[in-house]
Amino acid sequence: MSQTTNQSWGGRFSEPTDAFVARFTASVTFDQRLARQDIQGSIAHATMLARVGVLTDEERDAIINGLTEIQGEIERGEFNWSVPLEDVHMNIEARLTDKIGITGKKLHTGRSRNDQVATDIRLFMRDEIDVIEVELKRLREGMIELADREADTIMPGFTHLQTAQPVTFGHHLLAWQEMLARDHERLLDCRKRVNVLPLGAAALAGTTYPIDRHVTAELLGFDRPAENSLDAVSDRDFAIEFTSFASILMMHLSRMSEELVLWTSAQFNFIDLPDRFCTGSSIMPQKKNPDVPELVRGKTGRVYGHLMGLLTLMKSQPLAYNKDNQEDKEPLFDAVDTVRDCLKAFADMIPAIEPKKDSMYEAARRGFSTATDLADYLVRRGVAFRDAHEIVGQSVAYGLKTQKDLSEMSLEELQQFSTIIEQDVFDVLTLEGSVAARNHIGGTAPDQVRAAAQRAREALSLLQGQA
Amino acid sequence: MSQTTNQSWGGRFSEPTDAFVARFTASVTFDQRLARQDIQGSIAHATMLARVGVLTDEERDAIINGLTEIQGEIERGEFNWSVPLEDVHMNIEARLTDKIGITGKKLHTGRSRNDQVATDIRLFMRDEIDVIEVELKRLREGMIELADREADTIMPGFTHLQTAQPVTFGHHLLAWQEMLARDHERLLDCRKRVNVLPLGAAALAGTTYPIDRHVTAELLGFDRPAENSLDAVSDRDFAIEFTSFASILMMHLSRMSEELVLWTSAQFNFIDLPDRFCTGSSIMPQKKNPDVPELVRGKTGRVYGHLMGLLTLMKSQPLAYNKDNQEDKEPLFDAVDTVRDCLKAFADMIPAIEPKKDSMYEAARRGFSTATDLADYLVRRGVAFRDAHEIVGQSVAYGLKTQKDLSEMSLEELQQFSTIIEQDVFDVLTLEGSVAARNHIGGTAPDQVRAAAQRAREALSLLQGQA
Amino acid sequence: MSQTTNQSWGGRFSEPTDAFVARFTASVTFDQRLARQDIQGSIAHATMLARVGVLTDEERDAIINGLTEIQGEIERGEFNWSVPLEDVHMNIEARLTDKIGITGKKLHTGRSRNDQVATDIRLFMRDEIDVIEVELKRLREGMIELADREADTIMPGFTHLQTAQPVTFGHHLLAWQEMLARDHERLLDCRKRVNVLPLGAAALAGTTYPIDRHVTAELLGFDRPAENSLDAVSDRDFAIEFTSFASILMMHLSRMSEELVLWTSAQFNFIDLPDRFCTGSSIMPQKKNPDVPELVRGKTGRVYGHLMGLLTLMKSQPLAYNKDNQEDKEPLFDAVDTVRDCLKAFADMIPAIEPKKDSMYEAARRGFSTATDLADYLVRRGVAFRDAHEIVGQSVAYGLKTQKDLSEMSLEELQQFSTIIEQDVFDVLTLEGSVAARNHIGGTAPDQVRAAAQRAREALSLLQGQA
Amino acid sequence: MSQTTNQSWGGRFSEPTDAFVARFTASVTFDQRLARQDIQGSIAHATMLARVGVLTDEERDAIINGLTEIQGEIERGEFNWSVPLEDVHMNIEARLTDKIGITGKKLHTGRSRNDQVATDIRLFMRDEIDVIEVELKRLREGMIELADREADTIMPGFTHLQTAQPVTFGHHLLAWQEMLARDHERLLDCRKRVNVLPLGAAALAGTTYPIDRHVTAELLGFDRPAENSLDAVSDRDFAIEFTSFASILMMHLSRMSEELVLWTSAQFNFIDLPDRFCTGSSIMPQKKNPDVPELVRGKTGRVYGHLMGLLTLMKSQPLAYNKDNQEDKEPLFDAVDTVRDCLKAFADMIPAIEPKKDSMYEAARRGFSTATDLADYLVRRGVAFRDAHEIVGQSVAYGLKTQKDLSEMSLEELQQFSTIIEQDVFDVLTLEGSVAARNHIGGTAPDQVRAAAQRAREALSLLQGQA
Repeated sequence: MSQTTNQSWGGRFSEPTDAFVARFTASVTFDQRLARQDIQGSIAHATMLARVGVLTDEERDAIINGLTEIQGEIERGEFNWSVPLEDVHMNIEARLTDKIGITGKKLHTGRSRNDQVATDIRLFMRDEIDVIEVELKRLREGMIELADREADTIMPGFTHLQTAQPVTFGHHLLAWQEMLARDHERLLDCRKRVNVLPLGAAALAGTTYPIDRHVTAELLGFDRPAENSLDAVSDRDFAIEFTSFASILMMHLSRMSEELVLWTSAQFNFIDLPDRFCTGSSIMPQKKNPDVPELVRGKTGRVYGHLMGLLTLMKSQPLAYNKDNQEDKEPLFDAVDTVRDCLKAFADMIPAIEPKKDSMYEAARRGFSTATDLADYLVRRGVAFRDAHEIVGQSVAYGLKTQKDLSEMSLEELQQFSTIIEQDVFDVLTLEGSVAARNHIGGTAPDQVRAAAQRAREALSLLQGQA
Repeated sequence: MSQTTNQSWGGRFSEPTDAFVARFTASVTFDQRLARQDIQGSIAHATMLARVGVLTDEERDAIINGLTEIQGEIERGEFNWSVPLEDVHMNIEARLTDKIGITGKKLHTGRSRNDQVATDIRLFMRDEIDVIEVELKRLREGMIELADREADTIMPGFTHLQTAQPVTFGHHLLAWQEMLARDHERLLDCRKRVNVLPLGAAALAGTTYPIDRHVTAELLGFDRPAENSLDAVSDRDFAIEFTSFASILMMHLSRMSEELVLWTSAQFNFIDLPDRFCTGSSIMPQKKNPDVPELVRGKTGRVYGHLMGLLTLMKSQPLAYNKDNQEDKEPLFDAVDTVRDCLKAFADMIPAIEPKKDSMYEAARRGFSTATDLADYLVRRGVAFRDAHEIVGQSVAYGLKTQKDLSEMSLEELQQFSTIIEQDVFDVLTLEGSVAARNHIGGTAPDQVRAAAQRAREALSLLQGQA
Repeated sequence: MSQTTNQSWGGRFSEPTDAFVARFTASVTFDQRLARQDIQGSIAHATMLARVGVLTDEERDAIINGLTEIQGEIERGEFNWSVPLEDVHMNIEARLTDKIGITGKKLHTGRSRNDQVATDIRLFMRDEIDVIEVELKRLREGMIELADREADTIMPGFTHLQTAQPVTFGHHLLAWQEMLARDHERLLDCRKRVNVLPLGAAALAGTTYPIDRHVTAELLGFDRPAENSLDAVSDRDFAIEFTSFASILMMHLSRMSEELVLWTSAQFNFIDLPDRFCTGSSIMPQKKNPDVPELVRGKTGRVYGHLMGLLTLMKSQPLAYNKDNQEDKEPLFDAVDTVRDCLKAFADMIPAIEPKKDSMYEAARRGFSTATDLADYLVRRGVAFRDAHEIVGQSVAYGLKTQKDLSEMSLEELQQFSTIIEQDVFDVLTLEGSVAARNHIGGTAPDQVRAAAQRAREALSLLQGQA
Repeated sequence: MSQTTNQSWGGRFSEPTDAFVARFTASVTFDQRLARQDIQGSIAHATMLARVGVLTDEERDAIINGLTEIQGEIERGEFNWSVPLEDVHMNIEARLTDKIGITGKKLHTGRSRNDQVATDIRLFMRDEIDVIEVELKRLREGMIELADREADTIMPGFTHLQTAQPVTFGHHLLAWQEMLARDHERLLDCRKRVNVLPLGAAALAGTTYPIDRHVTAELLGFDRPAENSLDAVSDRDFAIEFTSFASILMMHLSRMSEELVLWTSAQFNFIDLPDRFCTGSSIMPQKKNPDVPELVRGKTGRVYGHLMGLLTLMKSQPLAYNKDNQEDKEPLFDAVDTVRDCLKAFADMIPAIEPKKDSMYEAARRGFSTATDLADYLVRRGVAFRDAHEIVGQSVAYGLKTQKDLSEMSLEELQQFSTIIEQDVFDVLTLEGSVAARNHIGGTAPDQVRAAAQRAREALSLLQGQA
């Protein structure tokens, strides 16, 4: 590692950078992750410079060949990253000049590290968004198929974690899927705002060279050049928007994780997770812990934290670029990695869930889960809903005392609370009758669940065409 | 204020709610703000119930008339809000039953407070988003017009708060405007996801009544019914998405505020804010403080805080509705109010900014702001950029020692550093030459600024057609 | 509400404050909550001014009498708060001058609103900390007593929400108590840093009047005057520290709440909460929802949010006072109220928990909770722990297949996995034997729990002496 | 890297862990940082086990020798970390068993990874707190000495970033120092709560071996064993408390950084930072950017983010240990590193600040900074403060119109506003007179600054005796 001062800006300085300060302010330890995008951007920049006559074709070719070789060196782990060269940009440029001489120094014509890094991050984010989208689709598909398969499987629905009404397991899974569908939309909305070209903004004000930013944008697959140079080099709202998407997604995954953890407990006993998604205890030989959902739930915190970190970072920053902005990368990288891995873990795990149908059914049978059905029965016989509610409330109080569920009471017992009740009441007190009766769009009736799965499948396939 | 137990669910309970608990868990002190939307939703629900035959037309009319009267009572401040009745929904329903008797109790058929409150919040958010959008447009318009007016006004551009290159004030204002344009897009993206109907989800699983959710959706102007009942009553991601939009917007306003505060300081002295946007000191008679931007900058914290609060709230919540969710309203209300007021304050203030052009110009003249232009001049004469940078760096070091800006040096002095420099160098060392030379899309050249203002105006007017 | 301009700083201004701006920047709607402390501080200030000869004794008495009357007006709801007068300080001072004429204007000698508000907040925080401490002690006492009562009650201990080892309910409650004991320490540590006097810092630099800050500090019960005027008017770290204490406390209460919600579910069925702490459902007549713990869990978000808000507020603020700081009050007030109410709700509720001992015991019997005891048994017979773990793991796999818990297997069955096992193994496989064997400080043995309760009681009573 | 399944808990499992899941759930990539503390804790544990007779002295010695060798292997970079072995604990234990055979397996007697990792983190935090404290002291010392040196240097004091009153640079530096003094106290308060021993809690309930936790506590330098096993393995409030300390400290450093950035701008021009703390621009040859304060300001966000991450992590976690907790380490490690490096950078940089005294003095002379002194002058001649304020306000309005500071007006001009003003007014309108007059504890008078520096020095040296 060379100890010389950074050659890119030394002219005006009378003493070298302090060794600790050099390490403290360097970014190359983490921004080398942008190397591929940095080279991709440089190749496009050189191509454009040649197109407008700032570089000759020979210079352009020398640059592109040099950069391509460097890309190979990096991929093969042969590249020597230098901290005194500060960042990924200077490391690559210094190596290029080593290789092709003075022409290498011409690459930086008409740009600055400020617009260069903004371009690199946007290219990186676009790549990562596309990878994340693949996992998100795979997870949604897995959920939809499992939901379709379990459209008839009855489980208790909860509010306040108290038994509320019977629902189907398929219906519950589609609730999860709906959350992810919105996350998917948010991801694509964010991608639109990522896919804009900062290059050409130079340090902050644009450049005096006759650049053509539309050419560069097209070469890099960006929708358009950014409209304002000051804004292009200094804002990071796309990074915050992505982290906000990621936080909401993690919030959703944390809710699913919480339920998976509950469901694998001895108390709920609703599902099994295959051993390969679980780990054991070094001290308690009987343990099989739902590590994957627990860890995903735990990782929610780090993504929320990155969102807060980035919002704090940008608060009150005057224009244009400030050194503070160097701090945008690590949280963003970690948010990207966390989201991608958590989605992959879920996409692998969800289809492997093994529902314990008997146990779910038995749980739904307990807890007066058809009390609302009894109230609705009374309403259909002319009782006002609020009065029906009161009648059923008294029946439940009786059931608690006598330890009988509603369907276990005799007709006479039920008639204590309302003489309107007749023999046909027992049809509505079955779990099957209860779920089948919620037969409208969005309801838990098995037919509705199957229809909703089909709509979800179609919506997802439309989206796939789009991306 | 009546002290009786809530009649909506008392049947199963053997003791009344503890008085402190009743106050602690009641939401009516803040959710009464949703009264208008609650009534709007109830009218649509009753209309639908009559359409499908669950209510008679007479019942529907009695309900609608009753609710309309209650709306009047609330608007006139004559409504008696009761804490023991817990929330806005039970308060209004109890009053309705007072007014029209047993028919009032039928309104709650086929719905629950869970889907009712989810509907109220979405109606509320849609209304508020539209109000916020009006202020946001007004602010953007004011910025665009000021930018157009100030397209030729030269000021120093900064990076690291150090003088970097001259830019125009109009260009700087358009950087702000671009930030807001993206915020505007995010707001409209959020609105799409807000505008979906939860009603019909009932408590969590749908209802056994033959409801038609498409009818209700249409009556309330929603794009479509929510696809899944469990999801519809339990998710609040639209609230988080809005608060995330709001946080990014406040981040942008905090950056503008920071600059306004800097610019009104004696040290910068770039602008004046009219007295009506400022306040004084109770002890220092000379003070004129830029209160509005300071306070907006300070309010950034509360909106970030609400985002964190809502993300925390929803983390790890199992489906479906939990009491925790009652905590969604206050942060959301406050985020809405804060954003609306801050936008209004800015929309009033920005057009009233008085730039001090001489002072800006003088500041741009200092600090070697045309050093990059000198480097570019050398490059155009065949020097590699990195070498030109070194030459100019030495000239600057000389200037610091002799207290001369580049344009104040003689040709001989400049030629000490490179004999390539000739008399025409002084053209590129003027501020006017410097800004005019950055003449490409996104650059600070006055013609580009005017063109950008025109494009911004058109983009905004297209958006206005859309909303 | 008078529409005149604020008379405290108008001299230098050429136009009145914009009406919207006046409302937007006024704080009196919320800072009137500090009225009592504002008057308390003013009385001490006047007393000190008289002591050093800046006021005559007659002036001091007129001021104190006037302020005392105003205190009465406020308490009786007769005080007219005026928004154009901006804040609590100017409202009270204006009223004082109404009452006692020109002498009222002399009260502000040697101070500024900057040091005045900093003093008010510290007095307020000290008062509120003391109220919070009372509730925190009451909650800790209730937990200790319940723990002592339930020192022998066996329940399953969980890790990863999987059955781990039997513990006692008393031991679990003391785990909660330990969390609160640390919160209590943090509260008292915070109080030390709150209890310092800013008054005398004036606007930012101190005052030219011959004030004696030690006198004022003593009159107001502060430990000492703040050491530096710039710091005294501009920092708010004590507010952040309090909100940080509050966030950690809410984190702890959220963990307890989560467990209470789990335990009241039909699946766990470990405890009952009295009806007075629960509410029902407007649609599902059987529901009894654990509203209090759910709501406390939900309120965690708002306190975390306030912490984030205050940290954001103070980030990057240059010295000394900026208008941003006005935003410190609302989050602080709300954090104070939330913490106090949540502690009160818990202090009322915890002693009323009704454990369902049979259900807890039965749950502990399932899930191989004594597997570790079997491993330890083997180790005592000379098997290395890691090998014992493997042997027990195989026994558990056998038990899962044959649906037998360890204590339900015959000696022959157990000896399949290790011939070292003998008849006395069944002593260690009982729940009572398992908990009694963890008999060291911090362990779950009933005797240890009772001893720990006694130590906790003593530690708490020592603390009470201190405050 | 071996691909076999983890031998520490495999017995009960029927399929190996999924390869991606193994990587996803492993912590060894980051928790290997705890190796030193893990070995330190194991040595103490083995020593205690021998003391109570669970291990023989030979076994203990074999274990200690083996661990000591492993420590050497790790320090020399020769240790082979294995991801399938999950974490630092299993990696070290597996290596120990390789080395010393079956005795190595006995080390885990009477403990679990749950109490082991809790112990490691607390040892780690204690070590790091002590390192951080050294840097914090060094920074405080540097500030105090610089303040003492600059006790007479006059600069403008600001409120609202508007010129308020003259202060001394030394006084301003002592304001910073006061903030750090409170941070220092918070750090030591946190250390008390870190320094408690979890070991002996085992998995969650304690252990059946006859351990002596007081011995282990003493061997490791802990103040006492943790009181409750469930709490000891599951809470992480000490980590949150540390991160909260770190966030408040970073908030303070961000405020200082903001001021340093302002002061090095061309507009303020109050100080110079030596070149070794600054970097340049790759495109603008004249730039010298205050990178260190900018980067420290930016790093505030990551620490705030970690605080939010940890608070989110712990929210609503049921007892006892959950896999989520694995996520506590990375934010904590990064918070520790960030705080230590930022303090080091500041401790190096602050004493090297070069104040530009003339420029500061000139800035203080402008902006009517002695207006308050004029008002106080009038009060001393019997004018009520509020009236004096009005008179001076009018003088300032006149000065703005005529472009004269107060001290530049003639006596006749001043007497336009009050005939009470006489020739001696010009004494109070000098900067020197203004600062010298604020001569009470906490005031900006040079003598007070020197006395305050002396008190700060003494307070710090007392603290040093304590640690």
